Amino acid sequence: MKQDRAVRTRRAILEAAAAVFDEKGYKAAKLTDILERVNLTKGALYFHFASKEALANAVLEAQVHETPLPTPQRYKAQEYVDMGLIYTYLLVHDPLLRASARLSLDQIPGLNRSSPYVEWVERNTRVLTEAKAQGELLLHVDPAETARITVGAFGGMNAMVSTLTPRLDLEREIPALYRHLLAAIAVPAVLMELDVSPDRGARVLADVTISTADVTIDTAVASAVGDVV
Amino acid sequence: MKQDRAVRTRRAILEAAAAVFDEKGYKAAKLTDILERVNLTKGALYFHFASKEALANAVLEAQVHETPLPTPQRYKAQEYVDMGLIYTYLLVHDPLLRASARLSLDQIPGLNRSSPYVEWVERNTRVLTEAKAQGELLLHVDPAETARITVGAFGGMNAMVSTLTPRLDLEREIPALYRHLLAAIAVPAVLMELDVSPDRGARVLADVTISTADVTIDTAVASAVGDVV
Repeated sequence: MKQDRAVRTRRAILEAAAAVFDEKGYKAAKLTDILERVNLTKGALYFHFASKEALANAVLEAQVHETPLPTPQRYKAQEYVDMGLIYTYLLVHDPLLRASARLSLDQIPGLNRSSPYVEWVERNTRVLTEAKAQGELLLHVDPAETARITVGAFGGMNAMVSTLTPRLDLEREIPALYRHLLAAIAVPAVLMELDVSPDRGARVLADVTISTADVTIDTAVASAVGDVV
Repeated sequence: MKQDRAVRTRRAILEAAAAVFDEKGYKAAKLTDILERVNLTKGALYFHFASKEALANAVLEAQVHETPLPTPQRYKAQEYVDMGLIYTYLLVHDPLLRASARLSLDQIPGLNRSSPYVEWVERNTRVLTEAKAQGELLLHVDPAETARITVGAFGGMNAMVSTLTPRLDLEREIPALYRHLLAAIAVPAVLMELDVSPDRGARVLADVTISTADVTIDTAVASAVGDVV
């Protein structure tokens, strides 16, 4: 029980920090702004995070760690797509992940901006390697290369969508990106079986088993899925 | 003659501003830092640019305006690739364009960060529409959609490459991106004829006719091509 509360407090601090970073930018953000939002003392905040930098790094980490892995599918190529569409859904509906994605684009020295990239590339390389082993991908495909392109391209689409006015719809643009990438890497018969529709992210996320290891993930998923179910 | 000098001064100011923005970030950058680098008076700078904001917007504009259009090719799909590979070459070798690309990722209110995206998407839509009209692209291709994906993905690859350590090689990653996109959109017989090799950007740039309309472009090209020819 006590642990649950600590987890909730930690998440509340992260959300408040993300909102303040998003609003004011990392440099101008002050710990007092964050404290005001969560109604906590400095001591309580320092119990969870040693510094503003530690907070920002935790927001950055949340990007991958709070995005649940997709449920197993018949085709690993579908899991590759689901990974991206779940994250797309969260980017649009979860302010913490949106702020995290933004933070990883700002050039702030000292922050660990590379680790989300590294972890996303690892996740994608893993699922693409499995897809290739199952014969779902064309012979020439290099899973690590396609993973780097997927992650880089995805981040860039998100940056472009949030810069252009009127804003483009990320939940339409990302499926279009995956349709392009899949056509280049998947075997035709597998292509036919894949679901890349814009509402798939929400559907898959609702399916994700809530009984995953990390409680923090559960909370994030539950709150993000809230408006779908 | 007098006009040439004005053009050179303007370019020198832009380069200095870009370097300072790149080093200190837009917000922390001061006009005096820029003046020191170019050895000019405030008055001389104001003759060219009304404010720090105007300077930053000019750096942003340079991103598209100082990237020359590729020379005509047998296949429009090749021009589509060349557009991206020329820009890749410039991003790696021209500090002004590198700083410009970085500036368009930072979330700075007031700056015209959307116009490079808009102009890149227009350039790509135009060449892809021509490629489709010539029967080089598959029937399902929507030139505007593929253009948005190309531009978003390109920007994201550049952001990822400059964030990761050890740095990835942009001149290898961008051709890989184009190989993926082309496989999804081009007719197989055209695909076979396309050159997407990493050194193509430098070669095409050296070919670009220097006699283009805008003198500023010429200067940029000449200086960028300098170390190739």
